[in-house]
Amino acid sequence: MRTAETAVEAKGLVVAAARMKALVYHGPGQKAWEEKPKPKIENPGDAIVRITTSTICGTDLHILKGDVPSVVPGRILGHEGVGIVEEVGAAVSGFRRGDKALISCITSCGRCDFCRRAMYSHCRTGGWILGNTIDGTQAEYVRIPHADTSLYALPPDADEKAMVMLSDILPTALECGVLNGQVKPGDTVAIVGSGPIGLAALMTAQFYSPSEIVMIDLDDNRLEVARSLGATKLINSSDGKAAQKVMELTGGAGVDVAIEAVGVPATFDVCQSIVAPGGHVANVGVHGKPVELRLERLWSHNVTITTRLVDTAATPMLLKLVQAGRLHPERLATHRFPLGEVMKAYDTFGSAARERALKVILENR
Amino acid sequence: MRTAETAVEAKGLVVAAARMKALVYHGPGQKAWEEKPKPKIENPGDAIVRITTSTICGTDLHILKGDVPSVVPGRILGHEGVGIVEEVGAAVSGFRRGDKALISCITSCGRCDFCRRAMYSHCRTGGWILGNTIDGTQAEYVRIPHADTSLYALPPDADEKAMVMLSDILPTALECGVLNGQVKPGDTVAIVGSGPIGLAALMTAQFYSPSEIVMIDLDDNRLEVARSLGATKLINSSDGKAAQKVMELTGGAGVDVAIEAVGVPATFDVCQSIVAPGGHVANVGVHGKPVELRLERLWSHNVTITTRLVDTAATPMLLKLVQAGRLHPERLATHRFPLGEVMKAYDTFGSAARERALKVILENR
Amino acid sequence: MRTAETAVEAKGLVVAAARMKALVYHGPGQKAWEEKPKPKIENPGDAIVRITTSTICGTDLHILKGDVPSVVPGRILGHEGVGIVEEVGAAVSGFRRGDKALISCITSCGRCDFCRRAMYSHCRTGGWILGNTIDGTQAEYVRIPHADTSLYALPPDADEKAMVMLSDILPTALECGVLNGQVKPGDTVAIVGSGPIGLAALMTAQFYSPSEIVMIDLDDNRLEVARSLGATKLINSSDGKAAQKVMELTGGAGVDVAIEAVGVPATFDVCQSIVAPGGHVANVGVHGKPVELRLERLWSHNVTITTRLVDTAATPMLLKLVQAGRLHPERLATHRFPLGEVMKAYDTFGSAARERALKVILENR
Amino acid sequence: MRTAETAVEAKGLVVAAARMKALVYHGPGQKAWEEKPKPKIENPGDAIVRITTSTICGTDLHILKGDVPSVVPGRILGHEGVGIVEEVGAAVSGFRRGDKALISCITSCGRCDFCRRAMYSHCRTGGWILGNTIDGTQAEYVRIPHADTSLYALPPDADEKAMVMLSDILPTALECGVLNGQVKPGDTVAIVGSGPIGLAALMTAQFYSPSEIVMIDLDDNRLEVARSLGATKLINSSDGKAAQKVMELTGGAGVDVAIEAVGVPATFDVCQSIVAPGGHVANVGVHGKPVELRLERLWSHNVTITTRLVDTAATPMLLKLVQAGRLHPERLATHRFPLGEVMKAYDTFGSAARERALKVILENR
Repeated sequence: MRTAETAVEAKGLVVAAARMKALVYHGPGQKAWEEKPKPKIENPGDAIVRITTSTICGTDLHILKGDVPSVVPGRILGHEGVGIVEEVGAAVSGFRRGDKALISCITSCGRCDFCRRAMYSHCRTGGWILGNTIDGTQAEYVRIPHADTSLYALPPDADEKAMVMLSDILPTALECGVLNGQVKPGDTVAIVGSGPIGLAALMTAQFYSPSEIVMIDLDDNRLEVARSLGATKLINSSDGKAAQKVMELTGGAGVDVAIEAVGVPATFDVCQSIVAPGGHVANVGVHGKPVELRLERLWSHNVTITTRLVDTAATPMLLKLVQAGRLHPERLATHRFPLGEVMKAYDTFGSAARERALKVILENR
Repeated sequence: MRTAETAVEAKGLVVAAARMKALVYHGPGQKAWEEKPKPKIENPGDAIVRITTSTICGTDLHILKGDVPSVVPGRILGHEGVGIVEEVGAAVSGFRRGDKALISCITSCGRCDFCRRAMYSHCRTGGWILGNTIDGTQAEYVRIPHADTSLYALPPDADEKAMVMLSDILPTALECGVLNGQVKPGDTVAIVGSGPIGLAALMTAQFYSPSEIVMIDLDDNRLEVARSLGATKLINSSDGKAAQKVMELTGGAGVDVAIEAVGVPATFDVCQSIVAPGGHVANVGVHGKPVELRLERLWSHNVTITTRLVDTAATPMLLKLVQAGRLHPERLATHRFPLGEVMKAYDTFGSAARERALKVILENR
Repeated sequence: MRTAETAVEAKGLVVAAARMKALVYHGPGQKAWEEKPKPKIENPGDAIVRITTSTICGTDLHILKGDVPSVVPGRILGHEGVGIVEEVGAAVSGFRRGDKALISCITSCGRCDFCRRAMYSHCRTGGWILGNTIDGTQAEYVRIPHADTSLYALPPDADEKAMVMLSDILPTALECGVLNGQVKPGDTVAIVGSGPIGLAALMTAQFYSPSEIVMIDLDDNRLEVARSLGATKLINSSDGKAAQKVMELTGGAGVDVAIEAVGVPATFDVCQSIVAPGGHVANVGVHGKPVELRLERLWSHNVTITTRLVDTAATPMLLKLVQAGRLHPERLATHRFPLGEVMKAYDTFGSAARERALKVILENR
Repeated sequence: MRTAETAVEAKGLVVAAARMKALVYHGPGQKAWEEKPKPKIENPGDAIVRITTSTICGTDLHILKGDVPSVVPGRILGHEGVGIVEEVGAAVSGFRRGDKALISCITSCGRCDFCRRAMYSHCRTGGWILGNTIDGTQAEYVRIPHADTSLYALPPDADEKAMVMLSDILPTALECGVLNGQVKPGDTVAIVGSGPIGLAALMTAQFYSPSEIVMIDLDDNRLEVARSLGATKLINSSDGKAAQKVMELTGGAGVDVAIEAVGVPATFDVCQSIVAPGGHVANVGVHGKPVELRLERLWSHNVTITTRLVDTAATPMLLKLVQAGRLHPERLATHRFPLGEVMKAYDTFGSAARERALKVILENR
């Protein structure tokens, strides 16, 4: 269970440390596909994973704008991936070299108070650290701390472009949107934002058989994708009348669940305007500024508003559903690139509307 | 089951309609204790109740300021009371003349979609209507629509000053604060506002055995009352540092449940500042303007914010606990007046801090 | 809103009371389609409904065997139906003459302690009374007590053969089987019994997206129907090895939810043998004798066993799903008869295996 | 961080392995306080704990009768204890030498599928293994596998005789009895069995403020203890009429929650006889044979029956409540012995009724 270079060292030869290629952040607006040292086991719970499939997240674009101060120059980006375990630390019992594994975007120790409450997002020594405070998955290799509780075993023949959606986007949409929103059979659900995360909410909301799913976006192409994935009503919100249209569609009743999948004040406002008494506003979007909460109206409306960083506690459920053929997250993958062309992949993903891009798959075969 | 006057009418005699005394709203800042016609059965589900105990709510003061536009001049105020059933309509099966009854501040039909979901606050033909859109309980008699599902039977020897707290304040604090806040054993709870509603939250939070209850108010007298009712920590917030002090008390962790029992932006802000990841902000206060919700910080904090108009669905639970001697809501009653001195009672209640008043009991014996 | 005969009586004429045809129980093994007086409003909450569609339940066969002592000779059978409201009592506010309505098999007052907890099955003046302690729905007309809370409004063009399944079989399967069993996405579910109620559990379990639904029965035809309705695995249990086969299918893990849809000790035993640690056994079957509960094995297995008489609290949810085209209960209807041929319909339903009968529709057009 | 003997071994000296005293099972009816090798770290997640306080469980008596076949001769008994960490393996991050720790009776890896669902009782490499399949805590030292997730940190000044009750008896009563029974404010609760576990259920049921707690036992002394701990009604069941008396006490309604805290068919039968419609039977007792479940009566009663091996998931909650002074489990400790007199302690505990013994504390200072 030793890597090549340490075997070499053991022989006492003077060799350069092993190298790999990775996508490195160099400050706002700057990134490069360049050589970096291959990661090594640092703690007994670590695993080194050779990435076979990765992808780009909207959060990566935020980082590149300089919006995420915890990411410092020199950091390898990426928090989504599927790969093959290359090496494990002494305390890892659930994985060994050669295993195929899904990398969770959330690292969890499984021991701290938050982990014992299944709030892995707030793990005392984990949470969202990959591609943030430690090097990430848009690379040939990645080090995964707390591997036993941060990786998920996959069968050798797993469809990687489906599985990589389970690193982040599917559990995020499910946990923050659908589970927090408490979608139940017969409900009317509105999803504000039909980007990848909104579409993932659309897919996972259907686990609970709502009667209606109203999809709201500025982009007709994305709305058409939503229709093909199960939306029952589409609203193009470019005229600023989305809330009014939802109230009309529901005969003035409003919706049981409003899922915010954008992250700006205007979309939150649509949600609070359309939620019915007794209903839920489930925030999924990453917000950069405060919103106005209209308590002078809502104080008596028996509504519940939730926020959440994904815990990936629902990943085992998602794995079962993909394996049973009941969930097809690969439908969110619109483009494929070799990992070595990740710079081009960023260009495509960064012009999502023009390119009609949803998720962009990076393959390292 | 006919009242005196209708019996008389039936005999064909010309008599004046029966009269009673009541506290009548005459527009902002104006009220009078005056004669009004005694109410009559209007629908088969109605009951007429002779009030034996009533009280004044903070909401009544809001109405008198002109803040509640649904209340029009001429309206009899009051939505809390205990009394004796005087007469019932033909469809009432659960009560008859002579029964002692608790009047719920929420009228519910028991039939509509909201009532079938136990959201009585939003009943299609009920909700909070007493002393609002129909005449209320600060009177010798009151008409209660949907009596079977809006009154609760009391034993003849019930302690009325305890029971009248179950009309509104106790279920409001319990449902909107404690149940929505999901207080559980071992929790750290903060209650912002130590007025009658905050103190009722303090009493009912203890049903679930939290480890700590931090009480926050501007008034030291009210904080001392809180201590006697079970608060474990007291914070006088007049220096504007309540949030900071709570964070210090909790070693930086914040609280599991923050109950907002005032209704202004500043107190909501304390709540959102002190809630721990995974925690709950339960709004009880009646708000007159929007608040700023700091989603740029909270989006990733796994918090739940709830609003609610009391449903009084928990009233049977409260009745059982009072009758078992495990809840003593009469401890909130600081002053007593004969019903005929309701004007004086309003003066006392309106100067609550100076008078050290919490709830003011109106007796009609 | 008076019926013809009372109008006539009011005129003081001597006329025979209005008559109708009905299926009457005359003691074990005996029934007849005969004339009976048409029902009248007896209480202000009653409605008289003209039956347009009815059906026969397995429970009706039990009654005819003499197994249900609360049913006395002379009783009109039937507790399922769709019809047109003919007349309503003075206290009925939600329905009027001419409305199409679904008749719930459970009558509920909406006022008693059980109804306020949504346990309509145990309503103090209702519950399962139709075709049991009062006359039922296999007749031209039926009296429905507590009409406002025991009927559900249907649109005029509702598909009656779909809707009549919502009187009993669909809510029973959903509430007692699926909801009590807490089926959740990704679960492995076993349903023991592939008769109408087991198939209804199969249909409604899919509201929650289990990964696997294993259907167990003695009859290959019914298993094939199950396959067409979504079962993923079929087990013919005639060799007595059903439990062993389920354990093999699940790699020794057992199932998350075992739904008992027969009502005999052997099928309960299959359920307790296959439930995984942490799992649920949801009893739906009507049992005539005790079962052996193997606590010496199960005490440490963290299992939950539930029983329930249907409350029909989930009927509004089911109505929404039928109306949204997401549930097709008419697929359970295999045979149709005019109501006048109800005796023949009983013959068919009583020989269900030979006739390949599931639910038998009775039409009165 | 090495123990004396390994240090010595490392020096290459021939020395006897370190020894300790322990209570060893030698087959049915046979046990001895004798020398055994002191345990050593075997896996990187292990800790060695020097026991300072231990106790005896009813299960230990079962083992000594030969009723627990997984316990083989030579095994050190005991699964409850408080101690000082002596040594930790390389992968242990939460504890170090000198820390005071509570030993959970349930060992959990924190990584397997059951642990990720907080079902630690069914941990793939843990569960109840101490004093069962590996050596236990009635010894001077014990090896604790998966130490990070199987020990709980205690402050140095913790009251050990209170804390040792949190190894097993308190979480068992709380989780299997009170939480599974879903005790809620205002409930009527019956606890069948007033031994240590029944009394622990009585103490923890009060976290949720039931109105009535009816305690049932054959022993008047234990019932008096129950009264002092908060029981509101006492029933001596030696006349075989416990169920009948409970029904009389509840006006025929039965109880909301029946907790079985004995483990024989007769006490289970009392529970199923007294549970109200909508109620819960929570099994805590360890059963040696099947029971008769009266489904012919209960199928329509909307009852829930639960079983559970304690998960100790509620231990953090219990720790908070002891530390807040809201729970006093030391009140269950009736006798104290030095650890070296464990044989005498077994005699006392084995004659619990005569000795008026509840929990017997073993001290090693």
